[in-house]
Amino acid sequence: MTQYSKPLPLKNVTVTDPFWHTEQELVRTAVIPFQWNALNDNVPGAAPSYCMHNFKAAAAQNARKEGEGKKFVPPAYTYRGFESKPDDPAHPDPDKFYGFVFQDTDFSKWIEAVGYSLTQHPDAELEKTADAAIDIVCAAQLDNGYLDTYYILNGMDRAFHNLRWHHELYCLGHLIEGAIAYYEGTGKDKLLKAAERFADYVGEVFGPNPDQLKGYPGHEIAEMALARLSSLTGEKKYLDLAKFFVDERGTEPNYFRYEGERDKRDGYSDTDWTFDYPYAQAHKPVREQDEAVGHAVRAGYLYSGMAAVAKLSDDPTLVKACETLWRNIVDKKLYITGGIGGTVHGEAFSYNYDLPNDSAYSESCAAISLAFFARRMLELAPKAEYADVMELALYNTTLAGMALDGKSFFYVNPLEVYPEACHKDNRVWHVKPVRQKWFGCACCPPNIARIVESVQEYAYTVADDASTLYTHLYMGGVAKATLNGAEVTLDVAANLPWKGDGTVAVRLDAPAEFTLAFRLPGWAGDDPAVALKASGEQDGRVTREVRDGYLYLTGEWRDGDEIAFDFPMPVRMLAANPMVREDVGKVAFVRGPITFCAEEKDNGDNLHLLHADVDAILNDPASVKAVPFEFHAGAKGIDEQGQGEVENVTRDMVKLEVPAWREPVPAGATAESPAFAPLYAPYAPVKREPVTATLIPYFAWANRGENEMTVFLND
Amino acid sequence: MTQYSKPLPLKNVTVTDPFWHTEQELVRTAVIPFQWNALNDNVPGAAPSYCMHNFKAAAAQNARKEGEGKKFVPPAYTYRGFESKPDDPAHPDPDKFYGFVFQDTDFSKWIEAVGYSLTQHPDAELEKTADAAIDIVCAAQLDNGYLDTYYILNGMDRAFHNLRWHHELYCLGHLIEGAIAYYEGTGKDKLLKAAERFADYVGEVFGPNPDQLKGYPGHEIAEMALARLSSLTGEKKYLDLAKFFVDERGTEPNYFRYEGERDKRDGYSDTDWTFDYPYAQAHKPVREQDEAVGHAVRAGYLYSGMAAVAKLSDDPTLVKACETLWRNIVDKKLYITGGIGGTVHGEAFSYNYDLPNDSAYSESCAAISLAFFARRMLELAPKAEYADVMELALYNTTLAGMALDGKSFFYVNPLEVYPEACHKDNRVWHVKPVRQKWFGCACCPPNIARIVESVQEYAYTVADDASTLYTHLYMGGVAKATLNGAEVTLDVAANLPWKGDGTVAVRLDAPAEFTLAFRLPGWAGDDPAVALKASGEQDGRVTREVRDGYLYLTGEWRDGDEIAFDFPMPVRMLAANPMVREDVGKVAFVRGPITFCAEEKDNGDNLHLLHADVDAILNDPASVKAVPFEFHAGAKGIDEQGQGEVENVTRDMVKLEVPAWREPVPAGATAESPAFAPLYAPYAPVKREPVTATLIPYFAWANRGENEMTVFLND
Repeated sequence: MTQYSKPLPLKNVTVTDPFWHTEQELVRTAVIPFQWNALNDNVPGAAPSYCMHNFKAAAAQNARKEGEGKKFVPPAYTYRGFESKPDDPAHPDPDKFYGFVFQDTDFSKWIEAVGYSLTQHPDAELEKTADAAIDIVCAAQLDNGYLDTYYILNGMDRAFHNLRWHHELYCLGHLIEGAIAYYEGTGKDKLLKAAERFADYVGEVFGPNPDQLKGYPGHEIAEMALARLSSLTGEKKYLDLAKFFVDERGTEPNYFRYEGERDKRDGYSDTDWTFDYPYAQAHKPVREQDEAVGHAVRAGYLYSGMAAVAKLSDDPTLVKACETLWRNIVDKKLYITGGIGGTVHGEAFSYNYDLPNDSAYSESCAAISLAFFARRMLELAPKAEYADVMELALYNTTLAGMALDGKSFFYVNPLEVYPEACHKDNRVWHVKPVRQKWFGCACCPPNIARIVESVQEYAYTVADDASTLYTHLYMGGVAKATLNGAEVTLDVAANLPWKGDGTVAVRLDAPAEFTLAFRLPGWAGDDPAVALKASGEQDGRVTREVRDGYLYLTGEWRDGDEIAFDFPMPVRMLAANPMVREDVGKVAFVRGPITFCAEEKDNGDNLHLLHADVDAILNDPASVKAVPFEFHAGAKGIDEQGQGEVENVTRDMVKLEVPAWREPVPAGATAESPAFAPLYAPYAPVKREPVTATLIPYFAWANRGENEMTVFLND
Repeated sequence: MTQYSKPLPLKNVTVTDPFWHTEQELVRTAVIPFQWNALNDNVPGAAPSYCMHNFKAAAAQNARKEGEGKKFVPPAYTYRGFESKPDDPAHPDPDKFYGFVFQDTDFSKWIEAVGYSLTQHPDAELEKTADAAIDIVCAAQLDNGYLDTYYILNGMDRAFHNLRWHHELYCLGHLIEGAIAYYEGTGKDKLLKAAERFADYVGEVFGPNPDQLKGYPGHEIAEMALARLSSLTGEKKYLDLAKFFVDERGTEPNYFRYEGERDKRDGYSDTDWTFDYPYAQAHKPVREQDEAVGHAVRAGYLYSGMAAVAKLSDDPTLVKACETLWRNIVDKKLYITGGIGGTVHGEAFSYNYDLPNDSAYSESCAAISLAFFARRMLELAPKAEYADVMELALYNTTLAGMALDGKSFFYVNPLEVYPEACHKDNRVWHVKPVRQKWFGCACCPPNIARIVESVQEYAYTVADDASTLYTHLYMGGVAKATLNGAEVTLDVAANLPWKGDGTVAVRLDAPAEFTLAFRLPGWAGDDPAVALKASGEQDGRVTREVRDGYLYLTGEWRDGDEIAFDFPMPVRMLAANPMVREDVGKVAFVRGPITFCAEEKDNGDNLHLLHADVDAILNDPASVKAVPFEFHAGAKGIDEQGQGEVENVTRDMVKLEVPAWREPVPAGATAESPAFAPLYAPYAPVKREPVTATLIPYFAWANRGENEMTVFLND
């Protein structure tokens, strides 16, 4: 029978392979310091976060309340040249709240990435800075545990009155996630205790008793965070609260409607009285939801929370709901880049099969939320499909969200970009042709930071009965687990994502019986199991079984045993389901976990006239070449703010050389010269100029200046 | 040398052919009465116009000013069951202005259609109603000639202060157009005099003298209306005013910027201080404009005004500017349906070659404005291209704007519609899958009414030296002109748009020398001149010359001479210029002036999986059949307001039967059932199920209930 499983603790896993190690170092050395500067309003030209300002203001207010003359003095901190500026003149009023209602989470997301980073890479200066920040945050907390500076500073009378839009419970969720990460990374529990106190207070305010509110988060995340807090602390009350939020959501009478009607009655409006319930997945009870709808990040966080609660509360009805929503996403609403969210309107899932390329939303955070969901589905049941999708989201849209120098970010990840359209066409106003330095609503950069810094947590789970260690992602590094009482270390070498080969060395003090299960990637041909062999199989100590896309190797393992794998990594020319209108007559190229794209830089402009020579490729699949190469990133900014600037960076990658043809650009048909070709003319077969298309990994696009890009090529 | 020409007066032309007669009768019997009810707020369920209410309120205010106890009593009017309701309780305050700032034009547009209709079809009851309405409108005019109820009722201190958005000069333009039409239709000049007085007042306020305003219309139309008024009255002052508006537009210092800065300084804001100059074609002087930009209706009206002023003032620099803008539209910004305006944002032209099908704006009024422009270009120089585009706009997008029962209307005319997207996708919120009953901003229905009722004015022009009568459009009916002093009557029989044949009988009192010039349609094959023969050619009295797409027949004409034509009308399979990204890999079918489309009703759903069999058609063009048939319109409403309802109507048309194939819909891939086909799969050549696609005229789409439609088919 399938068992639930859980990730290995982060401190038990390291990643040393060149691919992920490079990404993690980028986050550690570039993003985390940048984030810190951002949340201290210290990034010239970027919209201020006001995050630390707000915490300091709230802390100062608390101090004043405690007694005459008492004054909050924020601890001084310096970090990589940045100095704390408690009296920054950029803040006109040191006692007021500034920024978005969810601005507190800038800190929580940062401290989460810091926690993960410290697990792998101790850094005394960073830890000291983080401790100082934690002191400020904790000083902002009210005596009753409440901790959201928006209401602390603006007045508590409206706390928890606008769950639809005012992200208090979202702040709680991120605070918990950050606090746990920092605790796991450092062993320090000051922030964790603060998070628990806030969670305890929320658990008093919300719940099934008549005197408790029946609301739930307008932006989900508290559900999965509380489940994680319950697992960490063993406290059932946090799971109960998470389950309450999940179970209550979308039930009648609808809580969000109640809020709106109450505010309308009272003449109070800090937002619209009406609310689009599907936007926040609050249109019906979660167990009745069979289509992924609404704001994609909210949805991904909710589904992750549902899966987490389903596992911890062993609730088959909730498991079923998760499976239904998963199927809907994967069968009808998933981009080939691992992105979700087809429409800018509500940053949301569009209707089934509506996956536009040029106006895609596909928010970086949404891909990350899908990885969260996939990992929790894996914990419910190890099926390769979950890991395939998780891998797709991680390697493609998640990484595409960040420039190769770690200094600029995409919020929106289109699959097709024409810079002229971005500049002139309001229908794609949300699509940026180059990454942006920072966002006022800074969710994506820190989300990328926290998932990259914890990516090894996605590689393994161990079955709840400790019998089996699952390898979901192949990353070079070390993983330690206790299996059937034995301390097992896997020493993994892997060349993913560029080559499918690697080895897993087993370290043991003494021979032991357990199961090592390895995912058979969906991209690795028809029978990937033959590509993986364990030394213990030769003498019959270890037997194999394939189930749900995993190869289970069971038996007696000995120190020095080795598993060798060499998964085939054919280039796959994929077409979308014909119901995807936007992709009719198009193909995309995928190899291993990597989705490729064509950039103008390599292929010239007018990419819509570049066609894959599908017949030639079908006749000879080997005509598509996968070529290792050195990718040179680097670009000047496209405007006075230096947007689109990328430092010179070199990365080893694989590119594809694809048989293709081009329809010639008609004479004179450029923006600058009059057209000689008429706008409409009798159809004639298109003239085909044979060319070789060069495709690069999607995650690396837009690192060489503004240019056209497309994932799908016309066939 | 090419001469300027001018249209025949409307009273000199009749249209009797079944096609246009049917359309005109529809407007006369359905649209004009409906309009009248609409502008009297008498259409249940429709947004009130408040138009006549506002005129009555202004008239009452004028009466009160004139003396104690004086009271304005609006004349009673009845028309087709509708009674005047001066004290309608639906109007909470009889003294106040309601509705849009341009609401007065509802009347002006109506009276224009009425005037044209009365020219062709005397109707004492309608004329009496119109006279009563005119009495009300004229009673609303101020002593100084000013006539815009918005400012008359809201206070004159801000009159002419917000030219950007407050359509006073637009109201002037429409008033002139309506007044001229009514004068030409009835000989009554009361409204014309009122319009002249308003124009005189505007001519005092605006102009080159230091004490005059240097502004110009925020929404153009006054330019072409004033030019027409000048031609009618022989008064140069109106042409001077039109030319002032044209010349001043977009010059520096920019008048609209001045308005915004002044209002900002004064703290006055009835609209934004900033203004998007290209939106109103005010970004640079008109002679420097080389790309059609901004709000498409505004643009079309401006260009029409420019062409009219260019002709009357014989200004080659302005002619050149018109030619440049014409080329840009026709080469880069014109839909194959004769529509213009690619984007909903600003209801505007998009950038060059950006002609999306599903999110097209292509407003009915914009196509009409293009016909206006084309006609005035023809007056500048008779070139078949102008008439081809004019014909395309008239027969396709203009007519598509109105249901076949004349009772519902499209504002937006997409080239591809998936009802599910219209209902669920905010990116196409503006695209309606069925025509709407009326609009609060009711520009399109009355615009269709006025152009259909005057369509014969587009058929002919006569050269300024009276030597030549041009036939631009082939419509059955009678046209009278004085050529070289002789009274000439052409008696035309034509089977357009379904067949290219017909005859023109010449009636004369005595033989006379002149030229009859006939357009050689762009759709009529390589050498359409051979398809047209004059009896006078046989004995050498008449000689032929082809120039700029016109066949000039010159010589001595005698009573009873006949010109017979039989233009070939091949089905043309057209492809868009490859620079039109949205149309790559697609074809559209056109025959004569008619653009065709596929509807779900004839072809099943998922029209994106229907492909034209282009190879079969290239091999055998005759495999596409043009089949006369009886089109049955009729549909139930799709909602409680009855939107989309169409009465049962039968019309003779031609449909196309096109060799095609269908890609099968994957098993289970419907909204209702789970998908069995994966979202992405290895590319394989598509399975082709041969079918015959049935295409109907684009103008007839959406008359049989909500369904999918596409003009372009995949190849």
